[in-house]
Amino acid sequence: MTEQDGRDATDQAAGTQVDKQPERPPERDEDGFLPRRELLSQIDDAIEAEDGPTLNALLEPMHGADIADIIEKLSPAERRGFLRLYSGEIDGEILSEIDESIREEVLEQLPREVVAEAVREMDSDDVVDLIEDLDQPEREEILSALDDSDRVAVEQALAYPEYSAGRLMQSEVVTAPEHWTVGETIDFLRAEEWLPDQFYHIILVDPRRHPISYVTLGRLLASPRDIPLRDITEDSFRTISAFADEGDVAYAFNQYHLISAPVVDADDRLVGVITMDDAMSVLDEEHEEDFLRMARVSDDSHVSDGPFQTARQRLPWLMINLVTASISALVIAQFEATLASLVILAALMPIVASTGGIAGTQSLAVAVRGLATRELTFSNARRVIWRELFAGLLNGLGLAVILTLAGFFILGSLKIGLVLGMAMIANQIVAAMGGVLVPLGLTRLGLDPALASGTFVTTMTDVMGFFAFLGLASVVLL
Amino acid sequence: MTEQDGRDATDQAAGTQVDKQPERPPERDEDGFLPRRELLSQIDDAIEAEDGPTLNALLEPMHGADIADIIEKLSPAERRGFLRLYSGEIDGEILSEIDESIREEVLEQLPREVVAEAVREMDSDDVVDLIEDLDQPEREEILSALDDSDRVAVEQALAYPEYSAGRLMQSEVVTAPEHWTVGETIDFLRAEEWLPDQFYHIILVDPRRHPISYVTLGRLLASPRDIPLRDITEDSFRTISAFADEGDVAYAFNQYHLISAPVVDADDRLVGVITMDDAMSVLDEEHEEDFLRMARVSDDSHVSDGPFQTARQRLPWLMINLVTASISALVIAQFEATLASLVILAALMPIVASTGGIAGTQSLAVAVRGLATRELTFSNARRVIWRELFAGLLNGLGLAVILTLAGFFILGSLKIGLVLGMAMIANQIVAAMGGVLVPLGLTRLGLDPALASGTFVTTMTDVMGFFAFLGLASVVLL
Repeated sequence: MTEQDGRDATDQAAGTQVDKQPERPPERDEDGFLPRRELLSQIDDAIEAEDGPTLNALLEPMHGADIADIIEKLSPAERRGFLRLYSGEIDGEILSEIDESIREEVLEQLPREVVAEAVREMDSDDVVDLIEDLDQPEREEILSALDDSDRVAVEQALAYPEYSAGRLMQSEVVTAPEHWTVGETIDFLRAEEWLPDQFYHIILVDPRRHPISYVTLGRLLASPRDIPLRDITEDSFRTISAFADEGDVAYAFNQYHLISAPVVDADDRLVGVITMDDAMSVLDEEHEEDFLRMARVSDDSHVSDGPFQTARQRLPWLMINLVTASISALVIAQFEATLASLVILAALMPIVASTGGIAGTQSLAVAVRGLATRELTFSNARRVIWRELFAGLLNGLGLAVILTLAGFFILGSLKIGLVLGMAMIANQIVAAMGGVLVPLGLTRLGLDPALASGTFVTTMTDVMGFFAFLGLASVVLL
Repeated sequence: MTEQDGRDATDQAAGTQVDKQPERPPERDEDGFLPRRELLSQIDDAIEAEDGPTLNALLEPMHGADIADIIEKLSPAERRGFLRLYSGEIDGEILSEIDESIREEVLEQLPREVVAEAVREMDSDDVVDLIEDLDQPEREEILSALDDSDRVAVEQALAYPEYSAGRLMQSEVVTAPEHWTVGETIDFLRAEEWLPDQFYHIILVDPRRHPISYVTLGRLLASPRDIPLRDITEDSFRTISAFADEGDVAYAFNQYHLISAPVVDADDRLVGVITMDDAMSVLDEEHEEDFLRMARVSDDSHVSDGPFQTARQRLPWLMINLVTASISALVIAQFEATLASLVILAALMPIVASTGGIAGTQSLAVAVRGLATRELTFSNARRVIWRELFAGLLNGLGLAVILTLAGFFILGSLKIGLVLGMAMIANQIVAAMGGVLVPLGLTRLGLDPALASGTFVTTMTDVMGFFAFLGLASVVLL
């Protein structure tokens, strides 16, 4: 029964209830799709009591991805207890979902035959993901558990550069010669003993394994048996180079709503296929990296990290900030005489600097985001720079009016208000310009704009904030 | 020809080249999948010359999503020129890809029959996305272009709350009674005139349209004709409530690697289906929101916005910062006597405050990110709070040692170094605690942790930074 546009549901509503709000179901469990909080404490209890059967019963209805999340949330000691009790149940699905931050720890604690059994179930892309960060001996041990053909597929993928399409692809693909008909293809699929768990296209290849086009399974199912495959191919067909950057791959999947795409080597021969869930993971990781890098945190920071690891990840940027803050201190120190004769300036000077810092971060965030989504490219950079300049000027003027009035009415000094206001205009312009020029400059140099821009920009706005305010104050007020 | 694990490619390599790096293809065009920069300037030229045929020829090979990106990158004046020349070619694909920031502007400039023709081609979820932010009259006009059944489907979706699964779903679904066999299903699909462009499952429903399970098209194709559908269903089957929050939907797709999922109403009856590309868009938007909100930018900021819009979006947080910076100024003003007698303190005080600000942002970013990915929940919050406290103390101690030494060797005053160091320890602890407690508190209150946390935390670290440093200085140095 195919149904278009929910016609039948509407017939029942007699076409009149359309504007009414649909009836809402009772409120869901607060955590939605997630294992509930009590469940986690029950699991904690079962681990403490070393009660394997209870633990198994609690986890039995759960998806492998959720079990992996629970393993991540345990403390290292609980995790050891958990793995002792539950190791027999760890399968390929759970193992491939465990976050890389604790993966090595988990692999070490699992019996070798459990790991061997688990990796044999996994698609080649998941095995690659699992072992690519391991040292050579551990890698070899896992590879040796695989069948020859699986092992070769994984080794081939590992030969492609890190973060390339070659690492993301699975080698399990379903292909057909382009002269086949729908009927021949279906007969072949029915006769074939092995097929991937999930596949969405039949890839048409020429005799030298160059992919030519593909057919969706829906088209295949809806077409008569005697139709040749080449008559029902998709326009959306595009191949991905195994050397393409994984970020570009994720972009293409998102931009063109791809569901799967064939991967080719340097000779344009088919070597594998990337599916949308792989692309979605990459997109997710790239977002996470940008987010954490903008906040000056190492992009392998995890909620599950311990305190020493956390401190070590954060210290470098804090030390860099000691240096940049010392530059501000040097600037301020030049105005010692001014500050000595009017101490209130010391209390006011952070206002200009910090508001500039906020504006710089705002401008920066929009630019970094635009570069990531490719809304901002060098082709429209000039327009965006002018936009920022003008917007910075506007906000500087607005804030200057407020500060001037505040200076007059609260501090009783129009002059101090004017100095604050003028310094604010200058600093808002510096912030807006820095926020867009710094990430563009870093991109031009081939660097990640999310990584160091924040430090550059806030150093600029701090220095400019203190300098403009104290400099103007020296001239106007003394 | 099905092929597992790239066996045949390996045979050709005689099994020996595995450890060699695959041969790299020549460098790609710098922009990868994107329209190149020259192309954009050729398009600009064609618009200026009002040269429709050249414009058509340039855009002809391009994907609708890329054409939409080009339309977004044009200035408003160029866009008007573009739409005059190209309006006849704007189809449903291009229209559904145009960013919401310029969508209304584009719709106004297109002839009514172009819009009508375009929306008739679109899936119901794309029509919903297109019109949900329009005013009632414009919405009606577009709805009136649709067939009755399409219009009803769109109106039903619009009756669900904003940001719910009901808004994301398309009503075009392929269903079958569960007693059908593979053969009956294939015969039915071949006979059916209308099928969705993309579908990945046959949803099995009972006579009251309750979805029971689903069958992947791959399983259907690989199974003999006489097998009943109920024997080849998937374990991964789960339904989504039409009232579920779109963020929860995206989470479920990402967590469970879903490719499509049936959507049910309050009576558990099938009303539509959500596919992974919809979920990927939501994930993308949610990341963007978090990213921009953390930087105190309105989450509908776009690279294509004009300067007035940009200034207006950013001004509110800048004004809030004026207020919070004034609190710092008040704190500093309490120590006027201290500053007057030792002016160097004014130059040094931003060091403690700003390093605390960085540490607070670091802690905050990890917490906000963890809440978004559900790595951080109330079930493991206590562990994370302790971790932060300890990590803050460690980094505070490390920075204090550096500052004490710097005080002694650079400023020639061990006492000033010790004051800086002690203030730094206190502020690092405040930063680390604030960074995790503030977003957890906002979440508990049902607020978005990404929205206001930054302001809270930096206000805390500024106030604490100035207070601890100047307070200790008053006691120790004077």
